[in-house]
Order: sequence, then structure tokens, then C-alpha cells
Amino acid sequence: MHGFMGKLLAVNLTNGEISTLPLDEAYAQQFVGGASLACRYLFDRIHPDTDPLGPENPLMFMTGPLVGTAAPLCGRYVVCARSPQTGLWGESNSGGRFGPYLRFAGYDGVLFTGRAPHPVYLSIWNGEAALRDARGLWGKDSYETQKAIKDELNVGQLSVACIGPAGENLVKYAAVMNDHGRAAGRTGMGAVMGSKNLKAVAVGGDFQVPLADEARFKDVVQVVTEDIKEDIKGQFLSAGGTASSTDTTMWMGDVPSKYFTVGLWEPVANLGGGTMAETILVGKRACYRCIIGCGRGTTIGGKHATEKIDGPEYETTIAFGSLILSDDLPGAAYAGHLCNVYGLDTISTGATIAFAYYLYDQGIISKADTGGLELTWGDIEPALTLIEQIARREGFGAVLAEGSRYLGRKYGAEDLAVQVNGLEVPLHDPRAFVGMGLVYATSPRGACHNQADMFLVDLGAPVPELDIEIGDRLESSPEKALMTARVMDWRTLYNSLIMCIFCNPVAGFTLNLLNAATGWELEMSDLLPLGERAFNLKRLFNGKLGLTAKNDRLPKLLLQPLPDEDVDTRVPDMDVLLPAFYRVRGWDPQTGMPTPEKLQELGLQDLAL
Amino acid sequence: MHGFMGKLLAVNLTNGEISTLPLDEAYAQQFVGGASLACRYLFDRIHPDTDPLGPENPLMFMTGPLVGTAAPLCGRYVVCARSPQTGLWGESNSGGRFGPYLRFAGYDGVLFTGRAPHPVYLSIWNGEAALRDARGLWGKDSYETQKAIKDELNVGQLSVACIGPAGENLVKYAAVMNDHGRAAGRTGMGAVMGSKNLKAVAVGGDFQVPLADEARFKDVVQVVTEDIKEDIKGQFLSAGGTASSTDTTMWMGDVPSKYFTVGLWEPVANLGGGTMAETILVGKRACYRCIIGCGRGTTIGGKHATEKIDGPEYETTIAFGSLILSDDLPGAAYAGHLCNVYGLDTISTGATIAFAYYLYDQGIISKADTGGLELTWGDIEPALTLIEQIARREGFGAVLAEGSRYLGRKYGAEDLAVQVNGLEVPLHDPRAFVGMGLVYATSPRGACHNQADMFLVDLGAPVPELDIEIGDRLESSPEKALMTARVMDWRTLYNSLIMCIFCNPVAGFTLNLLNAATGWELEMSDLLPLGERAFNLKRLFNGKLGLTAKNDRLPKLLLQPLPDEDVDTRVPDMDVLLPAFYRVRGWDPQTGMPTPEKLQELGLQDLAL
Repeated sequence: MHGFMGKLLAVNLTNGEISTLPLDEAYAQQFVGGASLACRYLFDRIHPDTDPLGPENPLMFMTGPLVGTAAPLCGRYVVCARSPQTGLWGESNSGGRFGPYLRFAGYDGVLFTGRAPHPVYLSIWNGEAALRDARGLWGKDSYETQKAIKDELNVGQLSVACIGPAGENLVKYAAVMNDHGRAAGRTGMGAVMGSKNLKAVAVGGDFQVPLADEARFKDVVQVVTEDIKEDIKGQFLSAGGTASSTDTTMWMGDVPSKYFTVGLWEPVANLGGGTMAETILVGKRACYRCIIGCGRGTTIGGKHATEKIDGPEYETTIAFGSLILSDDLPGAAYAGHLCNVYGLDTISTGATIAFAYYLYDQGIISKADTGGLELTWGDIEPALTLIEQIARREGFGAVLAEGSRYLGRKYGAEDLAVQVNGLEVPLHDPRAFVGMGLVYATSPRGACHNQADMFLVDLGAPVPELDIEIGDRLESSPEKALMTARVMDWRTLYNSLIMCIFCNPVAGFTLNLLNAATGWELEMSDLLPLGERAFNLKRLFNGKLGLTAKNDRLPKLLLQPLPDEDVDTRVPDMDVLLPAFYRVRGWDPQTGMPTPEKLQELGLQDLAL
Repeated sequence: MHGFMGKLLAVNLTNGEISTLPLDEAYAQQFVGGASLACRYLFDRIHPDTDPLGPENPLMFMTGPLVGTAAPLCGRYVVCARSPQTGLWGESNSGGRFGPYLRFAGYDGVLFTGRAPHPVYLSIWNGEAALRDARGLWGKDSYETQKAIKDELNVGQLSVACIGPAGENLVKYAAVMNDHGRAAGRTGMGAVMGSKNLKAVAVGGDFQVPLADEARFKDVVQVVTEDIKEDIKGQFLSAGGTASSTDTTMWMGDVPSKYFTVGLWEPVANLGGGTMAETILVGKRACYRCIIGCGRGTTIGGKHATEKIDGPEYETTIAFGSLILSDDLPGAAYAGHLCNVYGLDTISTGATIAFAYYLYDQGIISKADTGGLELTWGDIEPALTLIEQIARREGFGAVLAEGSRYLGRKYGAEDLAVQVNGLEVPLHDPRAFVGMGLVYATSPRGACHNQADMFLVDLGAPVPELDIEIGDRLESSPEKALMTARVMDWRTLYNSLIMCIFCNPVAGFTLNLLNAATGWELEMSDLLPLGERAFNLKRLFNGKLGLTAKNDRLPKLLLQPLPDEDVDTRVPDMDVLLPAFYRVRGWDPQTGMPTPEKLQELGLQDLAL
């Protein structure tokens, strides 16, 4: 028993062959599910010469043993491949209903290989899979596509994951969109779909997710649900969405402004969840079996008036807000909506555009480069124009479509791009929570804020099984490195279940849920190694593709002190954090890779590079 | 003065912008032209994260200072980019008329960036460049495409370089085809065109190529032409085509059979230029201003009867002949024709298919893998089927479309693939001429026989400026390493002029031609560094993309002695050759890269990694 449907769908897009791949029990026991399990499948299939946009780059949609069960906050799926944005491990997960519906369709995941001769989409309904002509869908936006497919198939409840024009046009940070405005946004999985002529995947059905002990599972779910309901963070998220804490964290310097050069810009408060609730909010949106519902439904008026739209998330409000010194919340919401429509990651889109504003301000680029656009701090209108240009690869947008690293490089300013290994840094400043510096520098997919939410840990979120003081949010210490590593391992485990990053139940409940679903009868002490093993697997994956210790670095702008006197911030001391992190991880400081002893300990010795 | 038209065309396929880029005089003086000059332009534009099939991979068509002049054997152009086949430096040059016609159109080269929103082609007629809709051409073969474009443009004499279906389908070794059956075959430049939605480039016009001293140039051309006419190798090539020496070199073990496991298979004689002349040959084909005309025109009868077709070349006859133990010359000619039609490199196509035969023979793959095809030694019919499948990425062809390295990897036999850094080894066995072992192991584009034709040098072809004995063809000595390095440097220089690899005039004539064209007034001692500098530039280019000394290796099958008693062969001793080669090159044996001193000597210190 493993809590899985027990089979994956293998789709060869080149010749249209569809077959079933039995779930590898040994892999499941070692890596649980989600991105961790997908990484194990892809590890043998990706090589230094695998072209991220070539037919040979395998693309995997994966769920986990808790997805589609009654457990709260487990309605997620993940998309993985070699990232065209970073050239390294790519993963991005998304909520909504797609993950559960894929399992109700009869499969735990889908492995795509090859490249279809013309645009297609995959449908799986109650165990029946088929590739269908999508030539008529090519060019349609993500909302139109979802609707057109549901209309065409005309069966029961379906969920559709798809790309918009940005994915078709191979924008390096194109997202996979599902369930209206839900996004697997990061690392360009939408571009990989586009390169394969794969427009969408539509899933649904009536299969039941198997559980080792249904009665016991039901009991645990009941307790866990009550526990989460009482969690104050859940209540904040429900009331204010992901932007609920903006008003608090801005005073810590956590909210970047003016392209990461300002730590506190007070109008940021106008972008927070409170303002949103008072102005544009018209409803909440929840993923499958979510009891929080952090998703927002908004309606904006004025120049860019819309019907009810999805979002915006915190990251979106800042990327299209204070990062360009704009406090125009409806504008940021509309920017997020455009990203949803075209299928773009809001973080990378916003941060790349903000970088262009910065370069413009510095005189490094001018109207001659931007196609006549004046990128003036505070004016969101050119940003809206650029989103459309990026998605269509038109004008200056064609340059921005390659991301910040490329944009900087083109103008001799690569060092000024705030990115790590090609992925734009999200909107939590590591000078406010130094642990985030370590997270950004060493995460397997480049600058990632989901690998370990040290900004929450430093605010008091508990770290299971860790018996040290939280310490100061600004102190770069060996203890901080140890804590960061532990949080990464826990997050990696949650990402394999797949459980939402918000409001994870305490570890004991997680253990109970996992045991009741799988029948594995794990002990508490078994959990952390499940995360650590997968974290190291991803590290090996990147090592195979050429990553070394040299890649573990923060961008220059984040290593400069913030000028603000009113907020207490400090530059992370990477000379303290990194060596301590390598030590606690058991990584060789020269190669940056796990030592043979560490690999042995984790049972990964066969994958040594 | 630099012997150039003085400008390049820059084409942004994403937004359709076409502009002129002045030729960089300093680059031209350092790197002359051709692949060397293109590498200097691309060096700053390609990075470890540049996706070979992504819009950001720049693609360059380049000529050189002698192209389109009256100098014989200089009617060539080269296509360069990061190779999707190897992930490293990609270059491939081709004859015909395209190179000269590009200069007559007013440009020395074209730099493509981005990706067109739909299939397009570029036309340049007498200085006027335009991007035109190629949606109606998508799917057409290379002959149809050339004809359709000439019909559509309906101006004067045009030359068209294009891709066939293989390039559209991103086959990793898709060729760029021009002037009927001429091919820039190696390293997958056709796939790069396909990834950019660039179907073709059509060029022509009446511009005159500028010469520093026309009278002097004319004098030199006259003498050089006479000299080449008297060269015995030229006469052989004229009479027998590139397959003219098969009957001779087979007795040295140079002609690989049964996928490189047999050194002498006597029916190979049936594939030689002599047999061809007596059976299927109906005419010769010459490139612009070529006085040899090694190209063949043939007509075959029987099952695959054709009108007059192009080829086959030596490499084609062996790749589709003895490599699968077939001596069916019409069959090999037809295979070559199919490759021309679809736009495929005959070497990589034939060698990848032959590797499949070998795996089949070894029981590593079976009919279950090949889609029912029986890959029996000696039977060319399944190979013909596979060519079509490869071009269309159908059935087993979808696997072969990724090349030998991928094919081996898929079946756990990557070590048995006869390739270096992803490029299939051409049809000259290094166990017959050990210098070729060093060439294959260290050439900038993977296993390449054009970087240094040591099989000809060991047969007596002169090496300018080298005062040592030729030595034994089977002896792995430091002198062999020195000679190989020198020949590489000369070939690199010739490739920058661009002068055909066959029948290069003696160095003194080359010097005179170059000086009369450019007005540079170089000395004999200036020539070799021009080649060495560019060879090292390509090495740095690859180093930037991750290549190290570990990449310099021969495949396992070529390190096993040949079983034949009747031919004298020996495995190259790489433990002798490589260290000596690094020494003479001034390369660090640890990193495999040029030492700071060598870079200083060549004026490349600014490009140090």
C-alpha cells in the first residue's frame, strides 16, 4: 500500500503513444510523491545535453499520496522538467482542483516525452486518455482555453491545466494555468509545454483515492481540520489573502521597493490585504478541500475596469506595486490578471519589468531600447503594455521574455539583475530575514521563497523537531543555517504530499495522515530524512547539470545595505551562513555536492555523480 | 580595407526588425572570417543558460574575405550557433553558390536572433532585405522549398539555403540545405533554424566583392588555379568524387564496417568512386568557381529509381554502406537523396541508424523497440524507412532523431555509441590514422573530420611550416600531436577565408590571396597564429559552456583493436597523444583550457574564463 492510484500515464507526444507506467513502489517509499518523486523519475532522463526546449526534455505532472483525499490543504499538483529559465531543476506547484481531479481520473501523474507534430491537448476522463487536436486552441488565452476544452469534451466536472500565448511563444517564465487563475508559475514549465506543442491537459472522473485505513484517516482529518481552523495564520490568510501581512512586514523591511533598493516605502500599506478587502475585494476563492480560502476575487473599476477577476496575491501586488514605486492596487490587480490571461509567472514578469525601470532610471537603457516607453517610477501603465509585449514577444517585450539575467546581460549589467541562477528573487527581502538569503542562494530551483519560509519562521512559525532558539531575524549564525536547512527539509516533505505551504499541521498530524493513507507506519524520526533525501536528490540533479558551489550566491543589490533608517535590516553574512549550511548539510564546500558519507546515509549512493 | 563588404545584416525574428551591423574591423583582423569570425561575434552572445532551441540562441550565417572572389575553391559559407546536438560550439559550412551570392547581395553575413511568430523566410536581393511569410512552405522538402522561393521572388539568379521537414521537427542533426543538394550538415544548424521558425534564406544580387589590389589578386588567382589543376588529389576528386580513394584507404583499415567493429570488408570496393563512375554516375557538380567539381550527379534504377539526384559523397556511401554491411551503392545513393530531401546530415543519420543495427545485433533492442523493423546487417531497406521516420519524428525514428548518444542512453548502452560530445564519428577510422583520434577527441564541434584531415596528411599531404617527419600513420607520438595541432590551426585558417578543405594551395599562395584581397600585408609567420587564435577561441567558447579536459575522449568501440589480420591498424594511444597535445597547445591539463600565458600570446586574455 502506498496511498497512490498506483499508476502513471506515459504520453509520447511525438508518435501519440499513450501507455501506463506502474508506480515504482521503491521510489514512492524513498521520495513519497510530488516534486520529490518526480525528480527521481526525471533524474535518469535528464542529462547535461538535454535541451530544455527540445523534444527530449521530459515533462512530468505529479500528485502525492494525500492529494484528493479528505485531508485539508492537499489539493495540489506539481509540474517538473529541466527549466528553460534556469537550465536547472524546474518545479512549480499549483492549487485549485487539477491535482485531485487527476487522481479521480485514475492516475497519480503524467510523464510527457517528445513533441507533438502540431498543437494537441491531453484528456483523461475516468481512466480513458486521448490526445486531441488543439490547432483551433492555439493563440487562445488561458481562460478561453479552459472554457473551450470543457465545452468540447462536455462530460462531468473537469479541471484543465493549460498554457496561454506566453507558453506558446516560449517566454522563459511562462506559467501553467489551471482552474481559472491558479498558476504553476515558476521556472517556465509553460514554455516547456509550448515547446512540446502541448496546449493543455484536461482531467476528471469518479475514481476514489485509495487509503490504507479509511476510518483512521477520517479521524485524523477531523482533528487536523479543527487544529487548522484555530490557527491564527489561517485566519489572517482567510481574511486578508496572501497580502494580509503586508502592513506588518513592511515595518521590518521585508517588502522590497524601487527594485530592491528601498526597504520601507510607506504607501506599500495601500497594497495590503486590508486595503484590498476595503476596496476591490468581492469574494474569496479556495482550492479543493481548503478551509482557509486565501484566494481573492476582485473587481476593479476605472481605466482597466474588469468583471470579477482572480487575485491578486501578495507577490503580485508588490512585483507590480512597490517594486516600481506604484501603490496603484487596482493597477497591480489588473497586471496580475493580464499575467493570468497570457499565462505568465507574476513574480518573474513583475521583477523583470521592474528591473527594466531600474535600468531606465540609471540611464543604462533609454527610450531607444524600450520602443519609446518611458519607464518612470510610479507609473504602472508602461508595465501593463510590457506584459502584453512579453507574452507576444513583441518589441522590447521580446528581450524581457528572456528574463532579468538576459536583460542585464544585454546591456552589460548582468550583475545588477536581482536573480539567482536565472530565477527572479521573490518579494521577501533577505535583509529583513537573513535566513531567506540562504534559501535564495541554495534552493534547487534558483531564488525560491517556498523552499523554506524563513520569514515566517523568524516571526514564530514552529519548526518541528528542532530544539534551538529561533534567534534574531537579522543574525547570520550557524544556528540560522541549521534552522534553514531543517525548514527546507520539512518543506520538501510537505511538497511531496502535496500539502499547501500555508498552515501545515504540526508534524505529528502529518505523520498520522501519511501513515493512515499509506500504511507505512513511519515514526516521527523517519519524516525529516524523507525531506532531506529529496532535497539532496535535487542537488545531485543540478550537479549533474553543472551546478557547483559557485552557484550559491546572492545578487549584488541584495548584498548592499538598505538605506532606510526607520526599519531595522542587515545584509546576510554569507561567509558565515554558507559554510555552516554546507557543514550541517554534509556537503563538500569545494564541489558543493553531498559527500559520499551523506549520500550513503540517505541511501543515495547509487546516484553519486 | 579588409576584403569584406563591410556590413552584416542583423535580423530580429521576434519583432521582424532588420538592421545593419557594421563589420568590426578589429575582429576581422584577429579572426579573418568564416567560423572564426562568427565565433567572436557569438562568444559574447552565448552563455551556459542559452537554450540551443530557445529564441535567445543567436544564429549566424557568415562568409569570409575570399568568398565570391575569383579565387578558386572559395565558394563557401558557414552557419554557426550553439549546437542543439552537442550543447557546444556548432559550425557547419557548405559549398554551392550561397556564400558568394550572399556577398553579391551586399552582406558578409547575417545574424539572426529571436523567433518568428510563424514560419518566415529572409530574402536579400541587391541590398534589400525582407522577411516573408513562409507558412505555405512549412512541410515542404528542401528541393521544393528552394524552387518555390525562386518562383515566388522571380528576380535574377538566387541561391536559397533552407531546412526541410527534419529541421522543422527539430531533429538534432538537421541540416541546412542549399543549391539543390549542398548541405551544411553537421551539428544541427537546421534544427536551430526550425526552432526560430526560419524556413529559408534567399540571396542574390550584383554587388562586387571589394579587393584591395585587383590586379595583383588576378595574377595570384591565375597561378593558384594552374597549381591546383596540376594537383593529383584534385584530379582524383574530379574523376571519382569524394569516394575516389575508397579502394585505397580500405586496405589501410580506414573505412569502418559493421558499426566500427570491422576494419576491412572487401565489398566496400563496390561503394567506391570507381564503381560509381561505371554505374550510376551521370554528371559532375561544382561549387562556385571550383575547378575540381567533386560533386556527383547520379541516376539510380530498380526499386528506388530516381531522376538525376545529387551525390552520394564518400561519407554517405559508407554511413549507409559498409557501416551496416551493405554494398548496395544505389541504395546508399538513395539514402543520401532522402537525407537531402528531408534536410538531414548524412553522417549522423547513417551512423545513428547503424548504431541501431548494432544494438539490434547485440540483442540490446528488438522488434518491440524498432516498431517491428528487423535491422539485419546488409539490408538497407529498414534504414531507408528509418530516415523518413527520423525526419518526421515518427515511431522509432523519434528516438533516433535525438542522435546516437541519446539512443545508447535510452537502452543503457551510451558507452557503445561511437560519438564524441554528441557528434557522431565520421567515416575515417582513427585506428588507421591515429592522428584522427586526437582530432575527434579535441575538435571544437565534437568528432569532426574537417578540423584536421590527418588521414590525408599521413598519406603525404603537405603541412605548411612544419619541419618534422610525417612519421608512421599508426604511431602515437608527441610529434603526431604537434603535427595534428598544426594541421588544425591551418584548417581553421582556411575555414575562415572560407576555402574548401580539398586542394588548398600551398601556404604562400594563401598568403598572397589574403594580402591582395585585404591589403593587410601579412608575413608567412602571421598566418598560423590566425588559425591558432581562432582554434583557442572556440575552445574558450566551449569552456564557457562547461567543457573540460574530461570531454577529450574517444568512444569505447574505437579504443578496441580491430579484428582484421589483413589490414595494419592500431588503437591510438591517447595517454601519449593527449598530454603532448596539451603541451604543444599550451593548455592546462587539469582544466583543459588555454593557460593565461597562451591567451596573452594570442591576444585573447580579455576572454579568459
